[in-house]
Amino acid sequence: MTVLVFGTVAYDDVETPSGVRTRQLGGSASYFAVAASYFHDVAIVSVVGDDFEGSDLQLLSDHGIDTSGIEHAEGKTFHWAGRYAEDLNTAHTIQTDLNVLVGYEPSIGDLHARPEMIFLANGDPGLQLLTLRSLDARPRLVAGDTMNHWIAENRDQLVNTIANLDIAIINESEALMLTGERGIARAARAMLGMGIEYAVIKRGEYGVALFGVDLQFAAPAFPLIDVIDPTGAGDSFAGGFIGHLANVETYDDDELRNAVMAGSTIASLTVQDFGLGNLAYLDAKRIQERFNQFAELTRYRGHSHPDGLRLRNVSTRSPELAAASR
Amino acid sequence: MTVLVFGTVAYDDVETPSGVRTRQLGGSASYFAVAASYFHDVAIVSVVGDDFEGSDLQLLSDHGIDTSGIEHAEGKTFHWAGRYAEDLNTAHTIQTDLNVLVGYEPSIGDLHARPEMIFLANGDPGLQLLTLRSLDARPRLVAGDTMNHWIAENRDQLVNTIANLDIAIINESEALMLTGERGIARAARAMLGMGIEYAVIKRGEYGVALFGVDLQFAAPAFPLIDVIDPTGAGDSFAGGFIGHLANVETYDDDELRNAVMAGSTIASLTVQDFGLGNLAYLDAKRIQERFNQFAELTRYRGHSHPDGLRLRNVSTRSPELAAASR
Repeated sequence: MTVLVFGTVAYDDVETPSGVRTRQLGGSASYFAVAASYFHDVAIVSVVGDDFEGSDLQLLSDHGIDTSGIEHAEGKTFHWAGRYAEDLNTAHTIQTDLNVLVGYEPSIGDLHARPEMIFLANGDPGLQLLTLRSLDARPRLVAGDTMNHWIAENRDQLVNTIANLDIAIINESEALMLTGERGIARAARAMLGMGIEYAVIKRGEYGVALFGVDLQFAAPAFPLIDVIDPTGAGDSFAGGFIGHLANVETYDDDELRNAVMAGSTIASLTVQDFGLGNLAYLDAKRIQERFNQFAELTRYRGHSHPDGLRLRNVSTRSPELAAASR
Repeated sequence: MTVLVFGTVAYDDVETPSGVRTRQLGGSASYFAVAASYFHDVAIVSVVGDDFEGSDLQLLSDHGIDTSGIEHAEGKTFHWAGRYAEDLNTAHTIQTDLNVLVGYEPSIGDLHARPEMIFLANGDPGLQLLTLRSLDARPRLVAGDTMNHWIAENRDQLVNTIANLDIAIINESEALMLTGERGIARAARAMLGMGIEYAVIKRGEYGVALFGVDLQFAAPAFPLIDVIDPTGAGDSFAGGFIGHLANVETYDDDELRNAVMAGSTIASLTVQDFGLGNLAYLDAKRIQERFNQFAELTRYRGHSHPDGLRLRNVSTRSPELAAASR
């Protein structure tokens, strides 16, 4: 049983304050799958062009990723060019060449029809739903992402797709845009009303928040001195998040919290080099080390000593104030 | 022994998406002192005009706050008018009337010359340093805040004042502006190089990060459905933060972490009503309850089971990849 990801495999041109890279292997499915591979078996459903390098396919295979669902089509591989400004928070798209993505419809073979969990990476919400419906059975967990383009251009279809997810994993700005709400607590409440069980809201350098009907969890991002390239942070977060859940074979509240931290751990390692430059060359020791650094970053005595505050009682103040106290 | 705050007592006109309030009691010293009063004895050094209401002075006294250092001058109390846009992140100043602040120099009487800890709230960095130097002895802890105005207009004096602090407590945007750095990890490193022991970086709805030479701690803000008025969030954070440290009579790493959470707890309660509408009417039970909700929001099993990830080792992958692994 595997984790299946439906998304893009791409060549990216990226410019950040740290430098420029051209034709670097990217795409949502690549980042997701390599991240998830440290936790669980993973397979990609995607398409590439006849310019796709054998060495890039090999890099994916070397991670034990099942690449048999990557269709090879005539034409060029999907290409994205973008630039990050000094603050690294926002990617400015310079060019998008859909290339082999034009007219592409995923075909789910027998090998991939019964995944344990599926991640529908950002893409046409109609194709996301089609992919989900092509499976022989509903996976134990269905998660998906989207972006501003689909919210603006294809909202009805997107809302229909979201209703079929268990977990939506989206950026804060897109959660606010999708719901028209102010603040993530309100946006998450509105998203839970769309039929999902959990909303995972990615906040870039500010971390991640997770909302369920009876669950709220939030964690900061790891404060890094050197963020080299934010590309793929969100998809590698999702890979660590889903990979961990597949690994522990459950998604109760406690493991969802841990999954957010597993994803945050992987994402923080991803952005420390261009593209897959760091992500593809991790090992268990380095991942565990960052996970432990995260625990150190976020722990405080209130976790184990919940009544740790020594507060003055209102009775030490005036009777008028005590009476007014609600 | 008390906590002393040098800052403003003001009347504010505030407009937020939730409504409009005029002449509401505000100012950095008011928010700080009321917040700190739930933890420790606190005294204010400030100035008000002859329009200052007896009932507002009474509200401060009702919290056990020593108001004898609040000078009553001829003229009007400091007045600030501001508006928060829909996203509540940024206050747009409509008007600032310094009034009695013009030419005001604090005079530290015998009663206030030996505080245990002092908070130099945002204000003229020259006066901040003058106040500190007027004390009979250096307090156990000296903390201070500033804002963009002083960074732009009086940077040299500000850097001189910061060098005399133990802890700087400032907004993220101002930490970046002050240091000219990218990202809070770099900004904090630069601030520690200015002579302080700890940098506390306030990130509004994204929480707080604390940096020392050997300490990094970060926490999200509490996700609230209803943020009514963000005014005073930063100063009440500082009041809870310093109040807690004074209360526990130390500032080791563990208590600094708890102090961030005490401050975050108080700030999250402050913004749930206009002005001091909620902050002034809290009690130990409500504060402890929110503190516990924060622990629930931020806890995960990695805190107690640091080796909780079940990762695949690189040896399960190709020898080439293992060799390339750094």
